[in-house]
Amino acid sequence: MSPGREGSRFPSRFPDAWRHCVGTGRVELALRRDYQDSLALLQREIGFRYIRGHGLLSDGMGVYRPYEWQGERRVRHSFTYVDQVLDAYLALGIRPFLELGFMPGELASGDQTVFWWRGNVTPPRSHKEWAELVRATVSHLVDRYGLDEVRTWPIEVWNEPNLRDFWQDADEQAYHRLYEVTAHAVKEVDSELQVGGPAISPGADEWLDRFAEFVDRRDVPVDFVSKHAYSSGPAQHVPFGVHQTLAPATDLLTQFASPRERIKGTPLAELPLHITEFNSSYRPDNPIHDTAFHAAYLAPVLAAGGDHADSFSYWTFSDMFEEAGVPTSLFHGGFGLLTHRQVKKPTYHLYAFLAGMGDELLARGDDHLVTRHPDGRVTVLAWAPVDASGATPGPDRHVVRLSVPMRAGEAFVRRSTVDEEHGNARTAWQRMGSPRSPRPHQLDVLHEAAEPARRHGRLPVEDGRVALDLTLARHEVTLVEVSAVVEEAPEWADEQRLLGGRPT
Amino acid sequence: MSPGREGSRFPSRFPDAWRHCVGTGRVELALRRDYQDSLALLQREIGFRYIRGHGLLSDGMGVYRPYEWQGERRVRHSFTYVDQVLDAYLALGIRPFLELGFMPGELASGDQTVFWWRGNVTPPRSHKEWAELVRATVSHLVDRYGLDEVRTWPIEVWNEPNLRDFWQDADEQAYHRLYEVTAHAVKEVDSELQVGGPAISPGADEWLDRFAEFVDRRDVPVDFVSKHAYSSGPAQHVPFGVHQTLAPATDLLTQFASPRERIKGTPLAELPLHITEFNSSYRPDNPIHDTAFHAAYLAPVLAAGGDHADSFSYWTFSDMFEEAGVPTSLFHGGFGLLTHRQVKKPTYHLYAFLAGMGDELLARGDDHLVTRHPDGRVTVLAWAPVDASGATPGPDRHVVRLSVPMRAGEAFVRRSTVDEEHGNARTAWQRMGSPRSPRPHQLDVLHEAAEPARRHGRLPVEDGRVALDLTLARHEVTLVEVSAVVEEAPEWADEQRLLGGRPT
Amino acid sequence: MSPGREGSRFPSRFPDAWRHCVGTGRVELALRRDYQDSLALLQREIGFRYIRGHGLLSDGMGVYRPYEWQGERRVRHSFTYVDQVLDAYLALGIRPFLELGFMPGELASGDQTVFWWRGNVTPPRSHKEWAELVRATVSHLVDRYGLDEVRTWPIEVWNEPNLRDFWQDADEQAYHRLYEVTAHAVKEVDSELQVGGPAISPGADEWLDRFAEFVDRRDVPVDFVSKHAYSSGPAQHVPFGVHQTLAPATDLLTQFASPRERIKGTPLAELPLHITEFNSSYRPDNPIHDTAFHAAYLAPVLAAGGDHADSFSYWTFSDMFEEAGVPTSLFHGGFGLLTHRQVKKPTYHLYAFLAGMGDELLARGDDHLVTRHPDGRVTVLAWAPVDASGATPGPDRHVVRLSVPMRAGEAFVRRSTVDEEHGNARTAWQRMGSPRSPRPHQLDVLHEAAEPARRHGRLPVEDGRVALDLTLARHEVTLVEVSAVVEEAPEWADEQRLLGGRPT
Amino acid sequence: MSPGREGSRFPSRFPDAWRHCVGTGRVELALRRDYQDSLALLQREIGFRYIRGHGLLSDGMGVYRPYEWQGERRVRHSFTYVDQVLDAYLALGIRPFLELGFMPGELASGDQTVFWWRGNVTPPRSHKEWAELVRATVSHLVDRYGLDEVRTWPIEVWNEPNLRDFWQDADEQAYHRLYEVTAHAVKEVDSELQVGGPAISPGADEWLDRFAEFVDRRDVPVDFVSKHAYSSGPAQHVPFGVHQTLAPATDLLTQFASPRERIKGTPLAELPLHITEFNSSYRPDNPIHDTAFHAAYLAPVLAAGGDHADSFSYWTFSDMFEEAGVPTSLFHGGFGLLTHRQVKKPTYHLYAFLAGMGDELLARGDDHLVTRHPDGRVTVLAWAPVDASGATPGPDRHVVRLSVPMRAGEAFVRRSTVDEEHGNARTAWQRMGSPRSPRPHQLDVLHEAAEPARRHGRLPVEDGRVALDLTLARHEVTLVEVSAVVEEAPEWADEQRLLGGRPT
Repeated sequence: MSPGREGSRFPSRFPDAWRHCVGTGRVELALRRDYQDSLALLQREIGFRYIRGHGLLSDGMGVYRPYEWQGERRVRHSFTYVDQVLDAYLALGIRPFLELGFMPGELASGDQTVFWWRGNVTPPRSHKEWAELVRATVSHLVDRYGLDEVRTWPIEVWNEPNLRDFWQDADEQAYHRLYEVTAHAVKEVDSELQVGGPAISPGADEWLDRFAEFVDRRDVPVDFVSKHAYSSGPAQHVPFGVHQTLAPATDLLTQFASPRERIKGTPLAELPLHITEFNSSYRPDNPIHDTAFHAAYLAPVLAAGGDHADSFSYWTFSDMFEEAGVPTSLFHGGFGLLTHRQVKKPTYHLYAFLAGMGDELLARGDDHLVTRHPDGRVTVLAWAPVDASGATPGPDRHVVRLSVPMRAGEAFVRRSTVDEEHGNARTAWQRMGSPRSPRPHQLDVLHEAAEPARRHGRLPVEDGRVALDLTLARHEVTLVEVSAVVEEAPEWADEQRLLGGRPT
Repeated sequence: MSPGREGSRFPSRFPDAWRHCVGTGRVELALRRDYQDSLALLQREIGFRYIRGHGLLSDGMGVYRPYEWQGERRVRHSFTYVDQVLDAYLALGIRPFLELGFMPGELASGDQTVFWWRGNVTPPRSHKEWAELVRATVSHLVDRYGLDEVRTWPIEVWNEPNLRDFWQDADEQAYHRLYEVTAHAVKEVDSELQVGGPAISPGADEWLDRFAEFVDRRDVPVDFVSKHAYSSGPAQHVPFGVHQTLAPATDLLTQFASPRERIKGTPLAELPLHITEFNSSYRPDNPIHDTAFHAAYLAPVLAAGGDHADSFSYWTFSDMFEEAGVPTSLFHGGFGLLTHRQVKKPTYHLYAFLAGMGDELLARGDDHLVTRHPDGRVTVLAWAPVDASGATPGPDRHVVRLSVPMRAGEAFVRRSTVDEEHGNARTAWQRMGSPRSPRPHQLDVLHEAAEPARRHGRLPVEDGRVALDLTLARHEVTLVEVSAVVEEAPEWADEQRLLGGRPT
Repeated sequence: MSPGREGSRFPSRFPDAWRHCVGTGRVELALRRDYQDSLALLQREIGFRYIRGHGLLSDGMGVYRPYEWQGERRVRHSFTYVDQVLDAYLALGIRPFLELGFMPGELASGDQTVFWWRGNVTPPRSHKEWAELVRATVSHLVDRYGLDEVRTWPIEVWNEPNLRDFWQDADEQAYHRLYEVTAHAVKEVDSELQVGGPAISPGADEWLDRFAEFVDRRDVPVDFVSKHAYSSGPAQHVPFGVHQTLAPATDLLTQFASPRERIKGTPLAELPLHITEFNSSYRPDNPIHDTAFHAAYLAPVLAAGGDHADSFSYWTFSDMFEEAGVPTSLFHGGFGLLTHRQVKKPTYHLYAFLAGMGDELLARGDDHLVTRHPDGRVTVLAWAPVDASGATPGPDRHVVRLSVPMRAGEAFVRRSTVDEEHGNARTAWQRMGSPRSPRPHQLDVLHEAAEPARRHGRLPVEDGRVALDLTLARHEVTLVEVSAVVEEAPEWADEQRLLGGRPT
Repeated sequence: MSPGREGSRFPSRFPDAWRHCVGTGRVELALRRDYQDSLALLQREIGFRYIRGHGLLSDGMGVYRPYEWQGERRVRHSFTYVDQVLDAYLALGIRPFLELGFMPGELASGDQTVFWWRGNVTPPRSHKEWAELVRATVSHLVDRYGLDEVRTWPIEVWNEPNLRDFWQDADEQAYHRLYEVTAHAVKEVDSELQVGGPAISPGADEWLDRFAEFVDRRDVPVDFVSKHAYSSGPAQHVPFGVHQTLAPATDLLTQFASPRERIKGTPLAELPLHITEFNSSYRPDNPIHDTAFHAAYLAPVLAAGGDHADSFSYWTFSDMFEEAGVPTSLFHGGFGLLTHRQVKKPTYHLYAFLAGMGDELLARGDDHLVTRHPDGRVTVLAWAPVDASGATPGPDRHVVRLSVPMRAGEAFVRRSTVDEEHGNARTAWQRMGSPRSPRPHQLDVLHEAAEPARRHGRLPVEDGRVALDLTLARHEVTLVEVSAVVEEAPEWADEQRLLGGRPT
């Protein structure tokens, strides 16, 4: 617990909104093996509850299939890939946070697309057919997975309709209409299914006012509110990449917090608030995502985000992602916590460290978070401050001093470190020569270099507390676990006798 | 051995050209998990040597990547997915039979595409850049996988250039030019790499004459000759499917055999001949592929095809195939030996039965094939005759009588059966109601119904021979294994005493 | 439901006492791989809750370890193997039904042993040290696995103390003393842990009277009552085997039922009753265990046993069992549901069939059991009557006619069969020549021959019922599953057009 | 290459006698899952060719099974477990180095046993029956695994017959007789099977003289010579453990080398020499085996042992070993490279480091070994000197300076370290309190602590050489891999722009 003992409000519970949801490249990618292997690793070592991605209804999923029979136009709704994707998610212990979109080509009113993989972002040619598509899809899910299960799956309507890239003309009225038709179609299947929106991008909170007004006026069902948060400035392009300025990390927390203020007094006020996407840069080709800086930058966001929202979903878990085309290099600035081939990035470890924290919150500060497990273990997450402006490289060392409670005579301490040198495969990769297609042996080295450094030791317990004096390197994020020593070494144990010496 | 003992030329070796190669949907699909699981099953139970599919250079693989830097146009050749695909193949014990195509969109001279997934089928805008692409690709493979390995990978230039759908205007001269440029680019990397073509579709053997003349005249390297074979008539469309007439199976053998005749006396005469695609119907939505009829129809082709060609590659191993879009139903007439989710079709079992045959050919007839293993086991593949015209349903029973050699006093006989009722998940699926998206429990039932019926028994050996009297049901394909009994039952073994009765 | 509709008391719940517990060879064997692979298969396809075996405290487990230090005798309690065994059980989803025994050699008062593996069956030299051993063991389990978990593990004191082979002199007073000391030692760790006994062998129910009297008089804790049931007569020895007469299967049900009667009015009356071992023969070398007869013989016992006891535990799940030494042949009359190498015996399938039954009991008769699943599927288990006297081979066919409810126009019916020819690897093994150490290829054939025969079909539904007319072969056990057909075949589906014929 | 360039004899080949064979606890333990999982890990990361252990014919394997039938005594030879053990070895890619022994209880002439698990060490009651047992066993292996395979399996006769504990009265003549009978029995099965001995313990090389004389005089077949090597002094007992003095490591090399000298001029002179067991201490409860000291102590032995013998087999790969009973603590001084539960010890890493070396020997010195791979990578194994006398703790730092060849402008360097703090789970375990039965979470921590520390960097290449300046900690063993950098970072790569700064 930090020295000032400001933690008098404690013990309390550490909210795990950070693990509620994680983002993914378009859901069709879930058919891939590297994707599933990556997700399996993620679930084993971190364990998210939900996963959210685009493109459930896009052409690659093959859902909307018009045909002609005896002169009549009909539509077959087909779930060959939808089932394969969802079966895979559930088998891996994660549930879908469904996003309904984009528009099937043959149902679209226009041909504007987004991304290399061409998601159609125009309103439906027929809202009736769209409603039938939604109903058919949701009904199929209920049939296959059971109503109790599907009631736990949030259903979000579209993605970032406030941006022209994602919704033709960013037409707000057209979005409201789509939302209304969709929400009713969902509730026709079952009134307890959860539907929500408007999934807006940062800087458009005024859409919330009008969304609240609209659903109120038209009595449209809404079960949760969603928006996105990013902290990067405009893209400075280089081939196969961009650079961007970043706002301080607190800016993300502000973005998480703003809707609650905004929707006070509206019918949305009491609803769950989901930040259904967040990251530093919104670009899948910004190398900042691959760095130790990034983990240290996001650490305070993950530590405090749960104060402001019911979830905040890291965009995305894997570099298996194709919005800007197929990546041309192992490290390429992708959003992923993992690269292709499952090399862990520093931010992966930030999440894994959080997964090692306890439920009981003992203390929280600008550079640390302290929790306790039911079995008495105390875990500390600490991080070095970063300079997001880039004006300085950040301090090359940073000291965190804490005193944590422990019921024992001595404590075993175990520390894992991620920084510029450790748990940082990108550094090794650069030293190798930045091989775009690493050979198998190089991949082995990268997997090895991606593991955090580990240390352990034993510390005294005085007056029921262990003093921790942690020196952090530049951009370090560290997990420290303190546990009670129960000494079982027998009285005859004597290291001096290992080579046959006399007893000491 | 068949009664007429026409087999006096025997014993000889049974050629395994049938397992040399198998086809696949576009190679990008190899990134998928269902695909890899299916291929793993195939390799475990059958074991092909090579796999061939389209689209290695198509946009989905992300290989050809032009960009601009400081005002200059450059190209990055990127192998992110190529490596993932080939690593997967090699890990599963199968090698690529490389097919170079289709044209990257940004290198193409036109925008004509083929298939739902839009493979560009126009010549390169720049043959120089195409040659660089080929060289870069082959060099990368040699770097990553080693020269000795890559020398074993045939490299075929394009696919079915004689068809307008696959090569703009089916322009023969343009193909010759592409072939020449490509062959030289390959040989520049290493002169012992194997390059070939022209990968023509059925009914265009005259292309072989001109291809032979061309490579001879221009002294263009060529290491093998390839063509395709299909036996179906024109498509009669229904929604999500077609029906077609079929020629008798012997027509396929004629197609396999014709090039050898044609290229006699040309420089191609002594080269390996690969039938790089064959099937009954050339359509991925013809339900005939899913039937017991299909296995019985192809049985004589697999039994004799090796007399005519060095390989004949079944098109394709899995229904994970998207040329006509995402399949809308589990059974949909796909080419696959396996459906999505790895339900085995009757033709899968035909291949698996062949994989159980021995190397020594004892006899072969119109309805049977008899081989022997080094350990003395004799295996018989027998099949019912089919009526490919559809005029009759084919005989409802067919008797095959054989006498096979066996050194033992008695023989253990084991028989596996695939017919309309057994080893036939499609029949079960139809009885269930043809569920397009089967539930998990239904998939379990289908996997169960897909297994052949199994019987066993003991037969006497007389004068060193076992008489087999096999009655086959309609469209049955059966594998019979005969092995020597070495009796180890002790003299006190007595079934009459199982319930405590007196010794007999 | 059976025609007489005697089932008016229905619907009710089918008790699953049959899956509550299963027996195992001495628990040390759980360290083995074949054992763990077998248990994994069992849990995947059947799913038992508890597993019970001998020898937790025997020398092979290395628990009780006296030593001398500075002239003083001390004891180390060591759990190296105990932890490995229990970790394996829990990882496989099964909990231990702990049996405390046999006596560690260095704590024993005598040197009488039982079995090839020499379990010491004499009372402790020191009841104080025994109590310390029990306390240390149970405390360790609570520490490692948590109190909530261990409270669900029944703890049984010793095994068959009424037999001289298992308890020196079958000394009843000595057993009472052991029970008392043990029960108190367990309760000292936690008063809600469950302890019980007396684990008597068949034919000794009078021990229950005195056990009840004893615990009452001395106020000794007891949480459950246990006994064993076997139906075989005396052993007629042959080398590596025995033959025995069997009582009718109903005799087992009588044995299950008798304690309830006996303990009425005693303090044991309301306690759970566990049949902690049952089988036909009590010998691990009686080939009857390997037969189809055995499955049909036990079918009515499994169908009705839950009426009489809270559990009845099949002795044992695997032939990995060494009481009579290492088996000298793959099939050797072992207790196992599975042989070494995991070949399934007919009785395995009987259990797997039961695992496919629903919770709702629709009907039960002398030759059948009918249940329904929540999703409407109706499952029927039917079995042929057997002649346990061996006087006749049993009927060679037996007809079961049932009418079962189904809400649909048509029903899909799936049937699995185990009899002398099917699902019966022993028959195949005998035909092969009874190879004691089958080669790998022979093991493959045996695994194949061990699978039940499968059939499927479609039946009409009339007045909400499907008529089933099941003909069973000699010693057949069959599982029939009836489910509703939801017809999705499109109107253009036409089998007559498969070969391009005209529409019908 | 070391500075003195004494390596003028180089390049030459680095002999891999170190990986030819590894020891195991009695072969029956190979039935266990932890054993097989450990061996799988070992084979994946190190890769031995052969495995040798005691007890193939001991009672636990159930091979020799006399019985009576119709008044006559007969013997059944049974291979139930032999097959399971050997199938497991071969499936894991390792072959058996067969050791014939100990004596089946019912064939033994006496009842003297060795070890907690009671291996009978007396001569056979009947040499005829022993010969039949050997013939039956070897014939069975040839039948099951094929003659070509079994000819590659060395067959050693008995173990350490020169010790009274292992062979009654250490009776040399009785051993010669046993050897003669056995060798002939083996050769009767096939004359090209390899048989050898005398498997003597250290300090008994005079047995070799008489063995040579004996086989020569009696014309007894012998295909290889075997002996053992250990470097520890007498045992100083503490409960559950011992301490011993150790001779310097060179003493082991002397022991490896001595037989070649001894058998010069005898018929044994040209035969392969196998050190079929070696270690520091011959005790399975000496904690020295678990230490970093031990890896550094043995490093020069592994680096040079191949100069003296065709193999030297580390005794043993796993702590799954029961000669002194079931271990009572995770770390207990066992021989294993791995503890139970597969925690890697420092000596495991020494072997894994060697497995990462190349075939080409560039240099070798007192504290280092330098090799090159075909792809140009150079690997260095370096180790700190140790003080085996225990008089001093050994130097706390040690510098190794090397210059290694590299064709590139810059080199990527990767270093793995094992010492008192790193790659050393025992240190972590002691700090935890030496928990005898670690909880699952503690096991996770131990697995983590058992991994070597990893570093990487980039070094300049000057005049085709990289200067390495390695500082080693006390008892450190380190692997350094140097590889060429092929720089692929594009010209626009600029770390200064990560946060949107201006290009540098």
